[in-house]
Amino acid sequence: MQTLRVELGSRSYPIHIGDQLIGRGELYSPYVRGNRVAVVTNVTVAPLYLERTAQALAAGGAEVVRIVLPDGEAYKNWETLNVVYDRLLETRCDRQTTLVALGGGVIGDLAGFAAATYQRGIAFVQVPTTLLAQVDSSVGGKTAINHPRGKNMIGAFHQPLAVLADIGTLATLPLRELRAGLAEVIKHGLVRDFEFFEWIETNIERLIAREPEVLAHAVRRSCEIKAEIVALDEREEGPRALLNFGHTFGHAIETGAGYGVWLHGEAVAAGMAMAASLSHRLGGPSEADVGRILGLLGRAGLPVSAPGISPQRFLELMSVDKKAAAGRMRFVVLERLGSAAIRSDVPSSVLDETLDRAARA
Amino acid sequence: MQTLRVELGSRSYPIHIGDQLIGRGELYSPYVRGNRVAVVTNVTVAPLYLERTAQALAAGGAEVVRIVLPDGEAYKNWETLNVVYDRLLETRCDRQTTLVALGGGVIGDLAGFAAATYQRGIAFVQVPTTLLAQVDSSVGGKTAINHPRGKNMIGAFHQPLAVLADIGTLATLPLRELRAGLAEVIKHGLVRDFEFFEWIETNIERLIAREPEVLAHAVRRSCEIKAEIVALDEREEGPRALLNFGHTFGHAIETGAGYGVWLHGEAVAAGMAMAASLSHRLGGPSEADVGRILGLLGRAGLPVSAPGISPQRFLELMSVDKKAAAGRMRFVVLERLGSAAIRSDVPSSVLDETLDRAARA
Repeated sequence: MQTLRVELGSRSYPIHIGDQLIGRGELYSPYVRGNRVAVVTNVTVAPLYLERTAQALAAGGAEVVRIVLPDGEAYKNWETLNVVYDRLLETRCDRQTTLVALGGGVIGDLAGFAAATYQRGIAFVQVPTTLLAQVDSSVGGKTAINHPRGKNMIGAFHQPLAVLADIGTLATLPLRELRAGLAEVIKHGLVRDFEFFEWIETNIERLIAREPEVLAHAVRRSCEIKAEIVALDEREEGPRALLNFGHTFGHAIETGAGYGVWLHGEAVAAGMAMAASLSHRLGGPSEADVGRILGLLGRAGLPVSAPGISPQRFLELMSVDKKAAAGRMRFVVLERLGSAAIRSDVPSSVLDETLDRAARA
Repeated sequence: MQTLRVELGSRSYPIHIGDQLIGRGELYSPYVRGNRVAVVTNVTVAPLYLERTAQALAAGGAEVVRIVLPDGEAYKNWETLNVVYDRLLETRCDRQTTLVALGGGVIGDLAGFAAATYQRGIAFVQVPTTLLAQVDSSVGGKTAINHPRGKNMIGAFHQPLAVLADIGTLATLPLRELRAGLAEVIKHGLVRDFEFFEWIETNIERLIAREPEVLAHAVRRSCEIKAEIVALDEREEGPRALLNFGHTFGHAIETGAGYGVWLHGEAVAAGMAMAASLSHRLGGPSEADVGRILGLLGRAGLPVSAPGISPQRFLELMSVDKKAAAGRMRFVVLERLGSAAIRSDVPSSVLDETLDRAARA
């Protein structure tokens, strides 16, 4: 097991990375104060990992409340959130209760938002069981649900007390979800670490083959990059926005297609391809480097375009994106492989060209 | 105008108290960053104060989005919150938007929770227009909505950037609401400041007659007491709980009667009478001092009992109260007039006696 820390003063917390962590009671016990722990998971993850988690928690003496939700982005909404609130209230969970989010990004976001808002905030621990959640969404305290008008429109910053990234859970992950998680791994290399990008190029087939040591390195380096940026800018008022590379286009794709049609990582992959193309038009990476990005995404089995969404529709979808500052669109662009920047001066013509090109892809 | 500060490090903010503040644009302009400001108010307050507020904001160049909600505690729920989210999204309010909460405690709590959760948190300014909101709910960053199973069960701590307490708005306040606000003023004296309690005893008729200077003093001293306690304990992990004197019984009364039947301050008054009786049984204030409390509440025109709620029903209602720690009930009790403490060792027999006595009142 390796342990990193997210340095946020009084809200600092550890990220434990290793194999077979979810059954280790001593990793949870420092974070359980009351006599109840609520585990929030979904119908897919529950048969695989809920009992092992519950037993580890019960070994510490806590009564375990199990909350099993339907699976999928389409359920990351108010109705499902209310199921969590109802169960917490029914079982008399109080402000001392710790909530454990056991699952992928949807569970982490929704259960994290429940923890942020139940009785004005209770403690929670992230136990991510997908690659996407382990390398990205479980770290940094962003929690949210979707609104019919936009993804993650309702949410809060609420840091976990700890993250347990159990590499063992990736063995049961559907291949499509493994690939989707790799999109965020590639993103970390692109925006912050050229050497890591090259390491991914070298190891992409071993990642897809799920070699445990290779996966562990990808998770660890991604968490290091993310932890470093979150420590600089917890509430995304500055450099943290760089982690949204590909996400403005990606969110438009997810919303335009309807929640749950694309996986988040797939939409981010296509969004990164579009953002790379935009970056090249603005004098950033060379055409050859854009080709390298598309090549790597392709080898990871990820989409590099979003057919079926017209340029006009993209513009509509992006203008209500929460990253739109004061009515002007801000874009995360690459300066080169391994380095990103924020631009709010993208000419309409360059954006239009990028969208036209994507529509014809 | 007088200005106090709530000292919370990087989240410190001013409370301005005075007459005719809501029309003064320079009091808002330091807190407006984007090109839009959303004012959230209700159908009762809107005809009285919305245009004056909107004009003051528009003078600074911001586009003003007006969001007018139904009036009453019964609307402090998810459906109304969603009306706010919908309007913010429709009008393309973004993370730079400042939200102004113009109204009483319900508006402050609900609009504050909207600000806490819209796009993971936007800036907000409290403009309380009731005595209760000016002396209590607008200060300290507690925001929430109700859940069918309990009051304020869903919420967040989200500090405003400023509070503008305009004493002028109290001129239009219905007498019943003025009286309800006095309950929290009396509470501040009881838990923290015996001299202030005596000052209220001396001035209660002048407060009810709405003499501006007397009201301004009551608001100012209440805000000082609250600001001091909030600065010590922002998230209610310690002494801030003392401000819940009367609230455990009070919340049970509100929930038991159904939201909106009792005003919050009325329920707190009856709750304080019960808590005073409990405190006496535990060796706190003398019977004569309990009589002084009931006498003052009576002169303020406030209820001192909650007929119609049986002891058994009280117990049911209180056990899901969010102040119930780890399944044991905690009570804020008076040690004497002007000093409170938290007790989690109240014998069942003493609680039962208190509830029996209240049921027979």
